Amino acid sequence: MSTQPWHTAWLPDDAFAPLGRRVIVVDASADDAAGLAATVVAEVRAAVERSGGRLADARADAGADLVLAVDPDAGLPPEGFAIARQDGTTRVTAGDEAGLLYAFFHVVRLGERAFDDALPASTHAPAHAVRMLDHWDNVDVHDVMGQVERGYAGGSIFYAAGAVRDDLTRVGAYARLLAASGVNRVAVNNVNVHRTEARLLTDRLGDVVRLADAFRPWGVRVHLAVSFAAPMTLGGLGTCDPLEPAVADWWADAVARVYDAIPDFGGFVVKADSEGQPGPFAYGRDHADGANVLARALAPYGGTVHWRAFVYNHHQDWRDRKTDRARAAYDHFTPLDGKFDENVVVQVKFGPLDFQVREPISPMLAAMPQTHLALELQVTQEYTGQQKHVYYLPEQWSEILGWEPWADGRTVSDVARDVVAVSNVGDDRFWTGHPLAQANLYGFGRLAWDPTLSPEDLLDEWVGLTFPGADPRVRDVLRDLLLGSRATYEQYTAPLGVCFMVGPGHYGPGVDFYEYSPWGTYHFADRDGIGVDRTRASGTGYSAQYPEPWASTYESLDTCPDDLLLFFHHVPYTHVLRSGKTVVQHVYDTHTDGAARTEEMARRWEDARGLVEPDLFDRVRTLLAEQVRSAGEWRDQVRTYFWRHSGVPDERGGPLY
Amino acid sequence: MSTQPWHTAWLPDDAFAPLGRRVIVVDASADDAAGLAATVVAEVRAAVERSGGRLADARADAGADLVLAVDPDAGLPPEGFAIARQDGTTRVTAGDEAGLLYAFFHVVRLGERAFDDALPASTHAPAHAVRMLDHWDNVDVHDVMGQVERGYAGGSIFYAAGAVRDDLTRVGAYARLLAASGVNRVAVNNVNVHRTEARLLTDRLGDVVRLADAFRPWGVRVHLAVSFAAPMTLGGLGTCDPLEPAVADWWADAVARVYDAIPDFGGFVVKADSEGQPGPFAYGRDHADGANVLARALAPYGGTVHWRAFVYNHHQDWRDRKTDRARAAYDHFTPLDGKFDENVVVQVKFGPLDFQVREPISPMLAAMPQTHLALELQVTQEYTGQQKHVYYLPEQWSEILGWEPWADGRTVSDVARDVVAVSNVGDDRFWTGHPLAQANLYGFGRLAWDPTLSPEDLLDEWVGLTFPGADPRVRDVLRDLLLGSRATYEQYTAPLGVCFMVGPGHYGPGVDFYEYSPWGTYHFADRDGIGVDRTRASGTGYSAQYPEPWASTYESLDTCPDDLLLFFHHVPYTHVLRSGKTVVQHVYDTHTDGAARTEEMARRWEDARGLVEPDLFDRVRTLLAEQVRSAGEWRDQVRTYFWRHSGVPDERGGPLY
Repeated sequence: MSTQPWHTAWLPDDAFAPLGRRVIVVDASADDAAGLAATVVAEVRAAVERSGGRLADARADAGADLVLAVDPDAGLPPEGFAIARQDGTTRVTAGDEAGLLYAFFHVVRLGERAFDDALPASTHAPAHAVRMLDHWDNVDVHDVMGQVERGYAGGSIFYAAGAVRDDLTRVGAYARLLAASGVNRVAVNNVNVHRTEARLLTDRLGDVVRLADAFRPWGVRVHLAVSFAAPMTLGGLGTCDPLEPAVADWWADAVARVYDAIPDFGGFVVKADSEGQPGPFAYGRDHADGANVLARALAPYGGTVHWRAFVYNHHQDWRDRKTDRARAAYDHFTPLDGKFDENVVVQVKFGPLDFQVREPISPMLAAMPQTHLALELQVTQEYTGQQKHVYYLPEQWSEILGWEPWADGRTVSDVARDVVAVSNVGDDRFWTGHPLAQANLYGFGRLAWDPTLSPEDLLDEWVGLTFPGADPRVRDVLRDLLLGSRATYEQYTAPLGVCFMVGPGHYGPGVDFYEYSPWGTYHFADRDGIGVDRTRASGTGYSAQYPEPWASTYESLDTCPDDLLLFFHHVPYTHVLRSGKTVVQHVYDTHTDGAARTEEMARRWEDARGLVEPDLFDRVRTLLAEQVRSAGEWRDQVRTYFWRHSGVPDERGGPLY
Repeated sequence: MSTQPWHTAWLPDDAFAPLGRRVIVVDASADDAAGLAATVVAEVRAAVERSGGRLADARADAGADLVLAVDPDAGLPPEGFAIARQDGTTRVTAGDEAGLLYAFFHVVRLGERAFDDALPASTHAPAHAVRMLDHWDNVDVHDVMGQVERGYAGGSIFYAAGAVRDDLTRVGAYARLLAASGVNRVAVNNVNVHRTEARLLTDRLGDVVRLADAFRPWGVRVHLAVSFAAPMTLGGLGTCDPLEPAVADWWADAVARVYDAIPDFGGFVVKADSEGQPGPFAYGRDHADGANVLARALAPYGGTVHWRAFVYNHHQDWRDRKTDRARAAYDHFTPLDGKFDENVVVQVKFGPLDFQVREPISPMLAAMPQTHLALELQVTQEYTGQQKHVYYLPEQWSEILGWEPWADGRTVSDVARDVVAVSNVGDDRFWTGHPLAQANLYGFGRLAWDPTLSPEDLLDEWVGLTFPGADPRVRDVLRDLLLGSRATYEQYTAPLGVCFMVGPGHYGPGVDFYEYSPWGTYHFADRDGIGVDRTRASGTGYSAQYPEPWASTYESLDTCPDDLLLFFHHVPYTHVLRSGKTVVQHVYDTHTDGAARTEEMARRWEDARGLVEPDLFDRVRTLLAEQVRSAGEWRDQVRTYFWRHSGVPDERGGPLY
């Protein structure tokens, strides 16, 4: 793959050298229906050809260094595998072909350790059966949102010039990267389904077939974002009322045609009654009615509906402090718990607003025990620096996946059946615009597989694969840049959980940009204080959506964590935090320190000069300069805004304008 | 014209009925080089055919009701004419054919009064020889700015689908409307000259020829906006340094080709070194060098360069309070006074910022006695409601044209040789989007001809022509809506001359939208006060750019007019105005009252129902509803902003959020 014009990311040839030097047996005598065993054989063959090892016959496995075998009777969970070393042979047993593929990449990750006699025996299986990336790619370039909505890495790798690309070689390379990270589903188009994209379901289905063919060898099934209005806009019906039999028939016919063309099709992703997209509300139906009509069409084929819970009033009145967008998903969906069909998954953004740096975890995740849920994350850095800022997302995702809604050991990972994220990939040479944002894509798949992995270990894994054989200083520099990068970004942007101080396009500061907007994202700053009162006692009552102990914890100013203070409470600028600092001094200090930290990061990167490939070095260097500039702008605007409103000087004497 | 799909504006057939019923002689035995006498003959013939009068032979003028004659020896100024009535004949004598055309439309305006024996004798001539409309039309639709930059009335009437329109009938109708209002020049493309538009000067010159042909019968000469970089981008030279002989030669050749095709071509309009457009600064040359190289190419043919003075740093730092965009044009241009060639006209926006509702008049107009100046206005309502709000611009233009820079009787009209405005016309059926915005287009031409006309009289003129024979209540309703509309808009938008509280696209409120931007348009509001200190004593020194008595008047808080207070001074919210109100209470009251006034306007319009054509009625009604909504949004956002910052309650108890 190294001769391709795109970066090798975490699968450079050198990462395969440890196994490529060995004698390997692949024993996949079991039925290779999906062709995944063939993929593994081809990978092994390529690796040994590059590095001088040998692919041996399955009957000769006694002398092999590595045996990769499928055994359906080994009692392993789907996609799972066991690994152990004995008598000089590392033996990997997978319960199915998918497990074989994941086992292969596990061996790649282990590198030489896979052939160390001290290798401990272990068994592996994914925590989440569905580990999905949603691509918000448009087939046609959209007037306002471009080709990839919220995409910061160039155009789509799927589409160009208004159609699926002729050459899907790169999609295959992408699928391989995903398989190596653990992702097994991809939704291939934007949840805001525009005119051309809607037709992927019908007369443009051939485009989806070709994408599915490219993903299939890597165990990745494709899903499609569809418009709830498709029976009208594509089918010519006079309604899309989910309880209308003609509508159900239309969906059944459409789905039958899809499965006829793509037997392993994954299902639909639907954004309904949200930000202008059509939905069941128009017919007085609820979201269970809406989701179930699609689910019943998909059920005979094993398909799934991922139904997004991102439903709120986006024509809110900024004058109205009682309506709270944060309440909306819970208020709309929890009354429907138990009414969704078995193959519906309600897809919930991790926080009640919109992928902010710091929000409380959505209380809806704890409130629908009778419903399959998916946790929705963003790998694309919409609010987190747009792949111009270093922001290592696993630090945030770990926190989210491990959060305990009842503080009793049960985690978000336990209640969310599926884990889904919006992709950060485009046709940029480095896939993700910022080369270091590859670590986020990699980390997403790995955490979706095993949410208990530590961000530090994941980073080391990614560095080891991406920069094999590099000077050890590279790892040290990358640790310095990425670990703590989420905290740094939080320091210089919206403080204390207040959210949404972004400007147009969600990049850069715009403290008041959303303050008088219809979007429901306000901070209510005045000369005395700032923050949103979401308490039951005097505010919107959002805090009561949580189970105990969190409802009480968030409700009280005495117990609410500082980093969520302004999400739950409106306080004076002089309110004293647990740190002993006032809110305003905290804002001054964190913004000064956060921006200063970006300067240190830029300096630190210079230590990698000559140790990584020059174009990667230069790209990161250029982007760090932009991060420094942008962080300085955030610092000055937020500090000045607080100064102009509060009139309180900075104890440390930094500049205020 | 009434069968055309566009509105007849101020030239409906009925407006010609009073003269159309008469016996008329047109005596244009003089050389009809431009064909304007033929135009008048054709107009008269059409009018008498419609209304039963008669076009009589020139030798029979003794018995005519109206004689229109050209007499080059009558001692009349260019474009001028005299009118008198004697023995039952109204006799109009023009010094040239253009004067004949304007005289004809003068008679149309007079209507029956033209044939009243009490008609006083009078002589007429334009106060300004050049009365020009600049079209910011793009040939290609621009990604961000659309087809007509700052256009609010649909697409261009000149261009469609990336080229000049095949059918220019409507351009002819437009030229006729312009002639009837007094406009005699049109610049046919956007001053931001993009790639395709640049080529109007060279291989797309044929498009300009066709436009010139459409305008010529109405006495309107065409001008072209050109790119200063044309010698490089079109000519392939390595430089556009104005002192480079090859550059001068290139311009000379280009101009020769233009005049070969369009002998009455007017000249160039240039935006150089402004908002990203190329200019002489790149070569260390000044704007006189830049303008003169073009002027010398045009001089042999009598052409003119309109060189815009809108030069400022649009990458300003909001932290820097000493750099003042308001100073920029004066600082750049006044040192060059006397260095511009005779056929250069420096085109100065009326105020130092950018077409705001309330700015002081540009001090540059009083500071370049050795330079020809053009006053630049905007008919298009960029900052004044975008043709969704009723805003009768002659109220503001009268003020500007009549302002006395030295308070000694000499006015802006006296120092500005030319009057130029950005057009508000598009391919909308009503030409101007808002039907009542036609009054602004009409009023511009009339005021450029005679700046002493009162806005009230102009309005009556426009109403009389546009709604001939209408119920007198129509005039009353329109007076109630339009007169005072500028004051109303000022009441509910940015207060006391503070400027730029607009949101994206310059429509609607965005109090802080520009506050941390690079555009140099700040208000510096904090918890204590608001406004820009532009005094010599403690501020940017802008006030010193004025001659006395204004320099002192603006400098002192004691004498600065209240309506410009925040333009010149930063004051506490509790500063007491001449009205006895504090600044903050003034803001509360004016915003409450201004928004309430729009509701009265919308109610008042209902009185015109059934008295004007239904589609005009409905369009105005719909737009008034938008004005009411928008004014309410302005009211609430501005009031709330001042409340949140000052903490001062509204004495009148209106709602604050």
